[in-house]
Amino acid sequence: MPSKSPKSGQVNSSLRNIKLVLEYDGSAFHGFQLQPKHVSVQKVLEKALARLCGKKTKISSASGRTDAGVHALYQVVNFKTQSPRPVQVIQKALNAILPDEVAVVSAEEVPESFHARFDVKVKTYEYRIWNSRVRSPLLIGRVWHVPYALDLEKMKKGAQLLSGTHDFKSFCTTDPSKKDRDTTRTVYSFEVSREGNLISLKVSADGFLYRMVRNFAGALADLGSGKISLDDLKKSLQAKDRREVGCMAPSEGLYLFNVTY
Amino acid sequence: MPSKSPKSGQVNSSLRNIKLVLEYDGSAFHGFQLQPKHVSVQKVLEKALARLCGKKTKISSASGRTDAGVHALYQVVNFKTQSPRPVQVIQKALNAILPDEVAVVSAEEVPESFHARFDVKVKTYEYRIWNSRVRSPLLIGRVWHVPYALDLEKMKKGAQLLSGTHDFKSFCTTDPSKKDRDTTRTVYSFEVSREGNLISLKVSADGFLYRMVRNFAGALADLGSGKISLDDLKKSLQAKDRREVGCMAPSEGLYLFNVTY
Repeated sequence: MPSKSPKSGQVNSSLRNIKLVLEYDGSAFHGFQLQPKHVSVQKVLEKALARLCGKKTKISSASGRTDAGVHALYQVVNFKTQSPRPVQVIQKALNAILPDEVAVVSAEEVPESFHARFDVKVKTYEYRIWNSRVRSPLLIGRVWHVPYALDLEKMKKGAQLLSGTHDFKSFCTTDPSKKDRDTTRTVYSFEVSREGNLISLKVSADGFLYRMVRNFAGALADLGSGKISLDDLKKSLQAKDRREVGCMAPSEGLYLFNVTY
Repeated sequence: MPSKSPKSGQVNSSLRNIKLVLEYDGSAFHGFQLQPKHVSVQKVLEKALARLCGKKTKISSASGRTDAGVHALYQVVNFKTQSPRPVQVIQKALNAILPDEVAVVSAEEVPESFHARFDVKVKTYEYRIWNSRVRSPLLIGRVWHVPYALDLEKMKKGAQLLSGTHDFKSFCTTDPSKKDRDTTRTVYSFEVSREGNLISLKVSADGFLYRMVRNFAGALADLGSGKISLDDLKKSLQAKDRREVGCMAPSEGLYLFNVTY
């Protein structure tokens, strides 16, 4: 139904499609997605949008849902609005309304057809491991603390093995009701690097299964510590069975790092 | 008075002197120093030492007192104990008892004469500025957010001006009762660097006046933004009057970075 533009008073049926890039501290939220009883990123963002637009405004889509504790350096969402405000004003106003733990890094108007989830070409996650006998108080909630020695060369070989197109069913923590969905993905790159005590795993793919990166990180840590061999990892991948893969790394080391369209 | 060693039952009058290097998240504490009503680093550490040593054990000295909100990557303290435990065991036990926000990075036995404050040769502080229009949610409480443009070259010239031996009275937030104490210090190095949106100011000196680094950071930001000129800064330094220097930067961007003996 066409409605009135608040400023001009003219009838205006066209909705603008606004794309936002968000950064957030996952430890402050119960994940991205709306939840009735908990504070989620989507909830605080829709609340801010309602204040800005003067009416209930839903997020149309997000590049992906992050779990509780998972951080985002680059989460993409879009929403439709009749607001005539320039995108710079929208960004500034949202940052003034939103809690400190989430920020709009950029805002732009995109074609009506743009969809933050369906249009994703490549998504990149980073997983950060603090690999030292002693925890880092300044990185609590930001890294997975692994106190035993990890062999980076072994982990790099594991990352190479997991690169390419595979059925990653073994690395997917699934809802049993979704058994027969397609679990094949293409990992375009998987970099393992170390700077001091901080190990970074950076994975780019055309898409990710549920908790895939955390299962990757857990498996690479098992490989690096010598708990499993490269051959074991190969067999786990081929088994297409989640039970073949060991521990899942905790949420706090995971960062949604980039999304390209 | 000689007392019994709890393990051997033998009389043992010699106290071991243990040096600890600590890392802590300043946002979790009301500063380093003991305070009756607030949680301080010293309070949680002495509580942990009491549990470890089986008796009240005071921190003999610390390299310096950090204010509420100020972080430490390398704070040095020492304490005296009759405990016969190896230092590795002391470190591990303390890390198990202490809250996540503070950790013992290293522990070693030092000569009886070692004093964590009096014996300091060089101390280094780092001040971190997040210089971007938009805040970084993942760095809240870890940086000073400066949303306007800062000219790094100007700031480097300011840092050069503040290097060397000077009476830094203008950069000292003083207790009026301590008016006539010596306010001359030697700044050995003052590096200004930028990586992306993060500006780092790293200052090494033979000692620091109260809030000197935060006053330096405030002055350099004023210089970088064009609010003051290099000549103004020079005059401020020469004035030896705190009122001549502008804003003081907030505590959350400050890190005790290193201490050498």
